Amino acid sequence: MSSEDVKILAIPGSLRNESYNKSLLRAAAELAPEWLSISVYEDLAEVPLFNEDVANRETPGGVVALRGALLRADGVLIATPEYNQAVPGVLKNMIDWLSIGEAAEGLEGRPVAVTGVTTGPWGTRLAQTMLRQMLTSSQSILLPQPNLYVRHAESLFDEAGNLTDAETRVRLAALVAALGDWVNLLRGSGCVHDPVHLSSVAS
Amino acid sequence: MSSEDVKILAIPGSLRNESYNKSLLRAAAELAPEWLSISVYEDLAEVPLFNEDVANRETPGGVVALRGALLRADGVLIATPEYNQAVPGVLKNMIDWLSIGEAAEGLEGRPVAVTGVTTGPWGTRLAQTMLRQMLTSSQSILLPQPNLYVRHAESLFDEAGNLTDAETRVRLAALVAALGDWVNLLRGSGCVHDPVHLSSVAS
Repeated sequence: MSSEDVKILAIPGSLRNESYNKSLLRAAAELAPEWLSISVYEDLAEVPLFNEDVANRETPGGVVALRGALLRADGVLIATPEYNQAVPGVLKNMIDWLSIGEAAEGLEGRPVAVTGVTTGPWGTRLAQTMLRQMLTSSQSILLPQPNLYVRHAESLFDEAGNLTDAETRVRLAALVAALGDWVNLLRGSGCVHDPVHLSSVAS
Repeated sequence: MSSEDVKILAIPGSLRNESYNKSLLRAAAELAPEWLSISVYEDLAEVPLFNEDVANRETPGGVVALRGALLRADGVLIATPEYNQAVPGVLKNMIDWLSIGEAAEGLEGRPVAVTGVTTGPWGTRLAQTMLRQMLTSSQSILLPQPNLYVRHAESLFDEAGNLTDAETRVRLAALVAALGDWVNLLRGSGCVHDPVHLSSVAS
C-alpha cells in the first residue's frame, strides 16, 4: 500500500487546560511518521450547546470552524476523558452538531480513531466504548484496531505534560500509524467522503 | 407507607422548543397524584459547557440555578431524547456539572427516575441505558422500576404537544406515582440527602 500524505485532526474531549488527553494528542503528533501530520483542535469550547431548532436554521461560528477543520483533514483522532463512566457532555455535544440537522456533516464517511487517558486504573474503557457506539451511529468509518486505553496518567507524563512512558509511546505511535494506513486503505474505496484539500484547491 | 407531599423536578434532555420530551414531562405533571407536584425545568440552555478548571474555581450562574432547583426538590424525573444512539451532549453536560469538581452536588444521594421519547421505533432504549449508567456513577438513587420507553411519538401527541395516547398516559402516571413512592420509601432511610425545603425554612 502506498503511503500518501495524511492529515489528521486530533480532538481532545476535555476543556481542561492541562488535560492529559490534550497532552496525549500532542505526543501523538510528535510520534507520527513523516508522511502523517496531526494538528490538535484547541477550540472545542467555541462549539455551543446543541439545539436542533438552531441546527436546522443556521450553523454557529464555532461549528463552522470545527467542520472546516474536519473537512480539510483526511481523518480524525479523538482522545476522550471519562466522566461518570461516560463520554464528557462537551464531546458528545460536538458529535451532535456534526451529525444532526439538515446541514450536518463532518463525521459521516470519515475515518476516525478513538483513544483516551485517565488517572487511576480504568483508562476510559467505558467512555471509549460509548464513543464508538456514537461514532458508529453517526456513520464514521471507525478504525477497528488497535485499541489504546491509557490509565494511571499521573505516572506516564512529566509535569510539563510530556508523555515519558516508553511503552505508551510505542502503543500510541502504532495507533497513529494504523490510522494513517486506514485512511490510505479507504482512499478511493468509495467508503469515505473525499476530503476537501483547501490548500490544493488554492494552488 | 404514608404519602408525604413530594416535589419533583422534571428535566427534559433536549433544548428543542417543541421537544416531545418536554411535552412528555408536562403530561407527567398533569397525571401526578394530588400529593405530588412536578415542575419542568426550562433553563438547561443556561448551563454552560463543562470545564473542570472552571468547576474547581467557581459555579456559573446557570449551574447555581439548576442546583438550587434540584436541592429544593425531593426527586428528579429526566426525559431524554436519543441522539446518535446516546444521551444528548447537553444532558450529559448537565450531569458533569452536578457531579465533578470540588463544589459538585445535586445528584449524589438523590432519587431519580428516567424516561424518554422519540419518533420512530426505538424509544430511547440506548440513551436511557447510558443515562442510567451515568446516574449510577454519579451516585443517584435510581428508581429501579417501571421503565418507560416511548416510541412513535408522532402518533401519541396532538399538534399542541398534548399526550393523547391512552396507554402511554397510564404508563406515565404509573412511573410518576412510583417515583413518588420511591422518594417516600427512601425518606429517613439514610440513603438519600435530606432535601432543603426552602419554603419551610422561610416560614
